[in-house]
Amino acid sequence: MLAQRLIDALGADAVKMQPEDLAVYSFDAYTDGSAPSAVVLPASTNDVSAVVKIARECGEPIVPRGAGTGLCGGAVPIEGGIVISFARMNRILELDAARRRARVQPGVVNLGVSTAAAPFGLFYAPDPSSQKTSTIGGNVATNAGGPHCLSYGTTVNHVLGLEVVDEHGEVFKTSIDRPGYDLTAALVGSEGTLGIVTSAWIRLMKAPEAVRVWLATFPDVESASDAVSSIIAAGIVPTALEMMDAVMARAVEAAFHAGYPTDAGAVLLVEHAGFEDDMDAYEREIERIAKEHGATTWRAARSQAERDALWAGRKGAAGAMGRISPNYYLQDVCVRRSTLPKALHAVEEIAREYKLTVANVFHAGDGNLHPMLCYDKSNPKEVQAVVESGNAILETAIALGGTISGEHGIGYEKRDGMTRVYSTNDLATMARVRDVFDPQRRLNPEKLFPTGAQCAEVKPIV
Amino acid sequence: MLAQRLIDALGADAVKMQPEDLAVYSFDAYTDGSAPSAVVLPASTNDVSAVVKIARECGEPIVPRGAGTGLCGGAVPIEGGIVISFARMNRILELDAARRRARVQPGVVNLGVSTAAAPFGLFYAPDPSSQKTSTIGGNVATNAGGPHCLSYGTTVNHVLGLEVVDEHGEVFKTSIDRPGYDLTAALVGSEGTLGIVTSAWIRLMKAPEAVRVWLATFPDVESASDAVSSIIAAGIVPTALEMMDAVMARAVEAAFHAGYPTDAGAVLLVEHAGFEDDMDAYEREIERIAKEHGATTWRAARSQAERDALWAGRKGAAGAMGRISPNYYLQDVCVRRSTLPKALHAVEEIAREYKLTVANVFHAGDGNLHPMLCYDKSNPKEVQAVVESGNAILETAIALGGTISGEHGIGYEKRDGMTRVYSTNDLATMARVRDVFDPQRRLNPEKLFPTGAQCAEVKPIV
Repeated sequence: MLAQRLIDALGADAVKMQPEDLAVYSFDAYTDGSAPSAVVLPASTNDVSAVVKIARECGEPIVPRGAGTGLCGGAVPIEGGIVISFARMNRILELDAARRRARVQPGVVNLGVSTAAAPFGLFYAPDPSSQKTSTIGGNVATNAGGPHCLSYGTTVNHVLGLEVVDEHGEVFKTSIDRPGYDLTAALVGSEGTLGIVTSAWIRLMKAPEAVRVWLATFPDVESASDAVSSIIAAGIVPTALEMMDAVMARAVEAAFHAGYPTDAGAVLLVEHAGFEDDMDAYEREIERIAKEHGATTWRAARSQAERDALWAGRKGAAGAMGRISPNYYLQDVCVRRSTLPKALHAVEEIAREYKLTVANVFHAGDGNLHPMLCYDKSNPKEVQAVVESGNAILETAIALGGTISGEHGIGYEKRDGMTRVYSTNDLATMARVRDVFDPQRRLNPEKLFPTGAQCAEVKPIV
Repeated sequence: MLAQRLIDALGADAVKMQPEDLAVYSFDAYTDGSAPSAVVLPASTNDVSAVVKIARECGEPIVPRGAGTGLCGGAVPIEGGIVISFARMNRILELDAARRRARVQPGVVNLGVSTAAAPFGLFYAPDPSSQKTSTIGGNVATNAGGPHCLSYGTTVNHVLGLEVVDEHGEVFKTSIDRPGYDLTAALVGSEGTLGIVTSAWIRLMKAPEAVRVWLATFPDVESASDAVSSIIAAGIVPTALEMMDAVMARAVEAAFHAGYPTDAGAVLLVEHAGFEDDMDAYEREIERIAKEHGATTWRAARSQAERDALWAGRKGAAGAMGRISPNYYLQDVCVRRSTLPKALHAVEEIAREYKLTVANVFHAGDGNLHPMLCYDKSNPKEVQAVVESGNAILETAIALGGTISGEHGIGYEKRDGMTRVYSTNDLATMARVRDVFDPQRRLNPEKLFPTGAQCAEVKPIV
């Protein structure tokens, strides 16, 4: 019945119902998963509308899915339902170089936008480490960040308007250029719980004239963290300020031979972009600050190839973990820059307590930590230890005045953590906003909101 | 009864009920007005909560008010109710120079933030022409712009989080730094219809090392508009690109002796900021483009005094209108930069048709027109002609693919125009969002939403 209706609407080749197909769509990059009732591959906004209407009539939840690289289970169907894959809605619909904007379908791969914009001297700024794979739709759902968000902001700062299919299958549009309520920002980061994004106007930026990349090593993460704070206090906001601890740097070097020193306590990658004329002055100042804080080595990439090599190490950090552990769990929390060393010490202690190896790679400029805990999925004790350590790291971030997600979203994994950073009244307000868009809780249910804080269960505040 | 309850809660000196007091709060800078039931001057968030609770129990609407400089009647009590003046909540609560942010009460005057931040080398970027008077609360309510928004964005880009009193008198908080729905952007520009902002975290920016201001005159607005488009097409986004037509330039020169040539068809004021080392190159390029497009004169301000004089003319444009007309009506619409000359011609024709003098001053870089129509309030025929021309200008902007407000908000004046830029479904979605926060429509009623599009009257889309 469901199958036939979907096939009638979209055609047989756009509907997947075989167990082996469903199995593929049961997981994203989070540990848990479960199978959907059906998977559809719409080719247009009309197709998406039709699917949402059928889902509504059949009482099926909807789970939108980009590339499935999300780490928090946001694209996992927890209660079955229809997974909408945007693999076929992967076109750049318009690229308006004069107005520096593009309209793209949700399935467009992040890096594809910059590739298409490059001939016009433009690029799309948000660059999650998954950018070769992850899609604009998924980036919008999670308000994705990336190393360059230090200077350019996260996805929400680059979305100009959205076309959205609502819970009834009707289309509505938002735009930051029009008066009235600006719902664009509320939709970015809403993880598919308010509507299904079917196209997005995104901002393109002028490619900088000059880009430089430097690498400094430090005896320990404290001195490297102090250097990070001092660079920003000096009024320089580099386009990226990325740090790795010793464990991570050694794993990366073993995997990529990026030229990272393997005996350092911390490796700091700094990138800055702007006018060529300014670059020597920036280089001198950043080098001076790094050495003042005890940098033991200092390198400036002198060619595009050297820049790419330094970045390849950073961007491949997650991949390099395969060399030191069968599995890893990546946590994503934020603290103030000034409390970075404290947070890193706490993470180290947590790992020691649970007898796990931890490697750290993180957006130091943003105070956005990404501890990776090594474990073996086939060892249930280690799985348990990893889940508990992940929670302990969340608690640590909250205790330091930080928050439970930097850029990966909340999804299924962290939803109960929302009660730690929002008051009951704040969550009730959000739940009522969700009610406006999705009173029946069929759009990506079991995500973002804590268990028990779904609107029906929130008491009115009268 | 209402009076006594308000006095019990806030003290007698914080409650105004005399007809002469109420008369003062009957108007903002829009033409129409009507008297409130009471005016209160809270000193704290708790005071605001108390007032909202009393208003709720007494069935009184709430109208928040900053400095009353709004042009669209947003602060006017249309159906009576309690006006909350933020004149006493005018403190900067925190200024965190290291993190470049400040927490301010809504009654803080816009320019006061930059004054307080200046010793730290910081400033608050949004700068409406009313900045010496208008408040952060009013700026947040209308998502205020200003000349420098071309480069820095509008108020929404500078608000990091809000403390809000909801319709029940309860406090909730929003933050762009936390996961979950980002409601900050929806609240900015909501004109008091979603809640009463009682404090705001705002972004401070590093003051630029160098600022230059140039003035070019052109034979007509077409050639000046072409120069504007060419500057931006060349990859330069100046911090401001302001234009005046001949009528406006002459009025300003007569009032301020700013040194504006009085025989030009159009005057273009260009400001750019950045590093001193880059400024000569920018100056050469902008001058070259201006002359290429027929600039007849070119001046570079060579001192702070000269820069201030050129800006004083622009910022005092509205005041200068007093020299050529007893009253003026200022319209605020946006079109694409490329259609600016078309829009200006249409405005000219509308003025001719209604036998009104029009002077134009506008944010040319943003395509944000501000035609000022001269009239005499004591002549009912002219009043009627001005209202009709204002609507005709709105229609022109819409016909050119533009929109009905650039930075002044919708308020009471333009609410029916919302149906021209939003679909019924879009407005219904907004109305349902409003329902979340204000189901009884007591928070600034009769504003922002078109007559008849209040939620109760919007049919469900089932």
